[in-house]
Amino acid sequence: MREIFDAELKQIGDGLIEMSRLVESAITRAGTALLDGEHELAQDVIASDRTIDQLERELDERCVHLLAQQAPVATDLRVVITALRISATLERMGDLARHVAEVARGRYPALAVPPSARGTFVAMNEAAGLVARRTTELLSTRDVTLAEEIEVGDDAIDMLHQDTFGATLDPAWTGTAQETVDVTLLGRYYERFGDHGVSVARRITYLVTGEFDTAATASPASSPAEV
Amino acid sequence: MREIFDAELKQIGDGLIEMSRLVESAITRAGTALLDGEHELAQDVIASDRTIDQLERELDERCVHLLAQQAPVATDLRVVITALRISATLERMGDLARHVAEVARGRYPALAVPPSARGTFVAMNEAAGLVARRTTELLSTRDVTLAEEIEVGDDAIDMLHQDTFGATLDPAWTGTAQETVDVTLLGRYYERFGDHGVSVARRITYLVTGEFDTAATASPASSPAEV
Repeated sequence: MREIFDAELKQIGDGLIEMSRLVESAITRAGTALLDGEHELAQDVIASDRTIDQLERELDERCVHLLAQQAPVATDLRVVITALRISATLERMGDLARHVAEVARGRYPALAVPPSARGTFVAMNEAAGLVARRTTELLSTRDVTLAEEIEVGDDAIDMLHQDTFGATLDPAWTGTAQETVDVTLLGRYYERFGDHGVSVARRITYLVTGEFDTAATASPASSPAEV
Repeated sequence: MREIFDAELKQIGDGLIEMSRLVESAITRAGTALLDGEHELAQDVIASDRTIDQLERELDERCVHLLAQQAPVATDLRVVITALRISATLERMGDLARHVAEVARGRYPALAVPPSARGTFVAMNEAAGLVARRTTELLSTRDVTLAEEIEVGDDAIDMLHQDTFGATLDPAWTGTAQETVDVTLLGRYYERFGDHGVSVARRITYLVTGEFDTAATASPASSPAEV
């Protein structure tokens, strides 16, 4: 029984790593599509989100099947439940990458982000890419020191998100209403992406160390809506 | 064993109903705080979100405990897993109500929503209140015809969300950049709130009827980011 359980758990873990890799690729490409105005790349990110959704469904079925067949308890049970939650979180990260790509596609052949905010989004996309990359590594290695890097990346995104408000609310802002709307929503998408990365990091840290952080049990707290 | 399982399941169901009632109260009061500029009410909504978060944690522990103690299979297992997912969704709906209240508080004593967009948000808050109320009723009665009303409410929110873009992008829009940002984010919060209501409705419908809608297994699809 134990061997079967471990083998199935390994497959679930591999599924999460695969999802995370696809999310990493999606957010990186979505950022390029956004910043360089690449229509085909945007289309590609949007289309490939379906693969992430499909992987989530398969993974969830696998988890439910494992619960039914093996009736795990204690830590084993928590591992499976955590996998279910992480797959839902990765699926949302995929959605957010898709949303970034949708904004890029919607403005093509123009660029959604005006030159004055470009630097912020270049940095934001780099930080989001880092969060995604470290999430994949954390899922692969269970090296919890990576969780700290994910938190740092998320902090960077939060600061850059604040910068987007600073930019649009500055009297010197010359963006159109469309640009204000786009910068506001894009900032929100990246901010949520970072939050979800932190959620995954905390859940894995909890599983590995047993150290309980109440923040890890709830959905990722999004930053206050006040700007 | 069966009696114990049913009794515990009943408690989990009651917990979901309680969460949903709190969410319903939160979104309704957040809307009033937003539209009437009521600072204390906004504070109250923000503070009471902690109760929803706490309920989610308790409910999740109860579900995990039930899985460990009773090792349910087949439909029973799916019911518990679905309860876990619904509690996470309700927790997010609470967060979104809190975000609306945070915007209201951040602009006090001014109103966040300019007069020209007020009608849209009055209607949006009514539709969100309807979605929340029907969600509570659906959880209480399992009357799946209510799910349809939730979908209708969500469709109304989506149309009103589009109206917010129509307003801010209209050349006649005279709102400040702050108002553009607020209207954009508030529209997004309500839109997500409606999506989550639909997610709960579909999951319960699936449990009650056994009719599988693939959309119900993934996270709620949010409307395209294109505006």
